Formats: sequence, C-alpha cells, structure tokens
Amino acid sequence: MTLPRAVVLLSGGLDSATTLALALEQGHDAFALTVRYGQRHAIEVERAAILARSLGAREHRVVSVDLAGIGRSALTDVSLAVPRAGDPAQIGAAIPPTYVPARNTVLLALALAWAETLGASALFLGANVVDYSGYPDCRPAFLEAFERLAELGTRHGATGGRFRVHAPLLAWTKAEIVREATRLGVDLAATISCYDPGADGRPCRACDACVLRRKGFREAGLVDPALGD
Amino acid sequence: MTLPRAVVLLSGGLDSATTLALALEQGHDAFALTVRYGQRHAIEVERAAILARSLGAREHRVVSVDLAGIGRSALTDVSLAVPRAGDPAQIGAAIPPTYVPARNTVLLALALAWAETLGASALFLGANVVDYSGYPDCRPAFLEAFERLAELGTRHGATGGRFRVHAPLLAWTKAEIVREATRLGVDLAATISCYDPGADGRPCRACDACVLRRKGFREAGLVDPALGD
Repeated sequence: MTLPRAVVLLSGGLDSATTLALALEQGHDAFALTVRYGQRHAIEVERAAILARSLGAREHRVVSVDLAGIGRSALTDVSLAVPRAGDPAQIGAAIPPTYVPARNTVLLALALAWAETLGASALFLGANVVDYSGYPDCRPAFLEAFERLAELGTRHGATGGRFRVHAPLLAWTKAEIVREATRLGVDLAATISCYDPGADGRPCRACDACVLRRKGFREAGLVDPALGD
Repeated sequence: MTLPRAVVLLSGGLDSATTLALALEQGHDAFALTVRYGQRHAIEVERAAILARSLGAREHRVVSVDLAGIGRSALTDVSLAVPRAGDPAQIGAAIPPTYVPARNTVLLALALAWAETLGASALFLGANVVDYSGYPDCRPAFLEAFERLAELGTRHGATGGRFRVHAPLLAWTKAEIVREATRLGVDLAATISCYDPGADGRPCRACDACVLRRKGFREAGLVDPALGD
C-alpha cells in the first residue's frame, strides 16, 4: 500500500515536531521542510534535522529565503529586541512584534512547491491560535483560503485534485501539546521553542515562547527536559 | 500627496518591466522585487536592477530562495533540457515543462511579505494567459484567491485593509505588450525574455519565450533591440 504523501513544516520547535509525529501517526509518508528565513536562531535548523530523523520523516529538506531583507520583525531583525514576557503589550496583545510579515503565507507557499513536485496533497503546519491569537495567519479562515489558492495554482489542482492544510494543534493549549508530544514519543530535549536561544540552543527562559512553554509543562504536570537543569 | 505604495515583481523580462512601467504610470510609488529562485538565467537579476533604476522604481530588492532544492522544472533543474519551439507538445500544451511548481504562489507570498513591511496594499505581477495558458497560477481566479489569502493573513487585512493583485498584461497578446512597452519608454534592449540565454544575456532565439517575443515584435511592426543584430 502506498501511504499518502504529506509535506510537514518543521521549525525544530515543540509544536512542529508534534505536528510531524501526528502526521506520521495518521499514516502519512511525511516529508519535512525547514525554511530558514533569516531568523536569528539558526540552531532550530539543526534541531529540525535531528527531529525529522528520530521521528521517521522520509526526507528532510532545508530551504533558505532571506526574508530578513524585506521584513521587519524581532525574529529576523537584529536591531529589534525580542520582547520579554514582562514587557507591556505582549501575550494577548493585538499582534506581537515577533510576527514575521506574511510568514505562514511564505512557509505554505514553499511547502506547496515541494508538495507539487512530490505529488503530495497534504500540508501540515504547527500553527496554534491559543497562545498566539494575535497572528492573523494562524486563523482557520486563512488556512482554508490557502487550500483554495493551492487548488487554483497548481497542476494537481488544475486537474481536479484537492489540497488540505492540516493544523492539528490549532486549538490546543500548550499543556495539551506537551502531553500529546510525550504520548507520541517526541524527543522533547531536542525541541527548541525559545525566540532568543544561546548558540548552544539553551533557552533564554524569558521570552514569550519560553514562558508559554514552561507554563505548558507545568500545567501538564511534566518536566521539560530541554531546560537542562 | 503621498502616492499609494505598490510592490512590483520584476524578473528582468519584457512583461514584468512593462508591468512596472504601468504601475508607475498609474501613480504608484513602486518598490520592485526580484526573486532569485535558483533559475539558471541569473543575468535576469542584473537586468532587473537596470530596469528598476531606468523606469524610476523607488527601491529594488532581490530575495533569494532556493526553489531548485524542492522543485523540478527545466528553468531550475539543469538536468532537464529547455524545450525548443519545434519540440512536440509545447506552446498550447496542457502545462509546459518550464512551469516552476507553485511559482506565482511563492513570488506573491514574498511580494506580500515586503508589502506588509512597506504598508503597500497593491501587488503587481506580469502574468499573462495568452501565450502561457498552461500555467494554472496565471488564471484570474488564482489571483483573486491570493487577494483573499493576503487579506486574511496580514496585519493590514486583519485590521480591515484590502489587497489588490494587479496583473495588467493578463489578457494581452505579446504584440500588445511590445507596443505598450514602447509607448511607456521601457528600455527594451535591457529586457531579457529568453529561457536559456548566454552568459552575456544574448537570447538563444530558439526557446518558446524567444519565439513568442519575436512573433510579438513582428506583429507589432517593431524591431527588437535585444536581438543585437
């Protein structure tokens, strides 16, 4: 039996690793794609390779795109400080400054390009709206609009094929993601969620992502092995 | 008065240069974006810079994305020959082999990222369906689907803003494009349409793009200065 192929966007973080594990559990032949978009934490790319291999992705590819040249975000622009959880107007604010312009549009477009080459009609994305409700490109309506675009803009779609964008974590709390990652055997020590990690990948413990991850582990009643203490 | 900002995708070819000239004539403050997607004819990027300057774009940026790593097309894969006009199943065939997977989705996604940074709500693309009817991502329905996606996936859209994707050449013949380019003062000698040019930018005269361009100039009753003879 041939398994249906899926392209899974894999950043090296907890959410995307859990998403890859789910895609595999659901019976997909998974092709993991890491996009280097000029983010400062290139350590994520190394972790993504480790996770793709340990989880059993068929292939892992890295595509570089220098979004830093056209975007402006604390994640790609070294002149902007990464906000700390204590800063005003952070979690829950309208749109956080760590938002990368049109990021999910770019990521999904690249995933679609590879999917078309592979004959894959499923795309998986670790988007989540619970902790990051300020990111417009994590909304279900956005993901559905991308499916429509994909069907109109590809050979597969032009010949009657469908595309599905799966974002299985979309409505999960971080604690639910941590529990599911544990159940699925994700190597949590390899995942990196921090917006501003050290060169060795150690999390800063102060950025929004670190605070949310710690809260998630605490609520799940589990210890985070990535903290290394 | 502040002119509305537009991001114009500029490949260095005749169509995109004409599109940039139209965007400027229509009163836009135009930001030209060239995407290097691993295509073999890097000479296009040099020509794009010349054209952006001569036409009066406010800025020109080049973004590189290594689509060659995930795509398969005669334009990015050196192991595939560029088809010649005499080959069977070329112009008018279902989908030509020079089709780059999800290319316009990727190009527009990058244009959108810059547009969001700039506060531009217009994207210009030199897509054309007359000569290249086999490319699914040149269809009006595709472009409209991208507008919808852009509105759902950006801050600008999330706060009620609109995006427009302009493809003014969409239904024009090559002869009409040549005439309009001439009227607008586009430096035709600088434009490069060839799929397989020499290192000095000289067109091969045999690929589909060369044949269509020559036909366009002939029908327009004009001489193509890029042929250099």
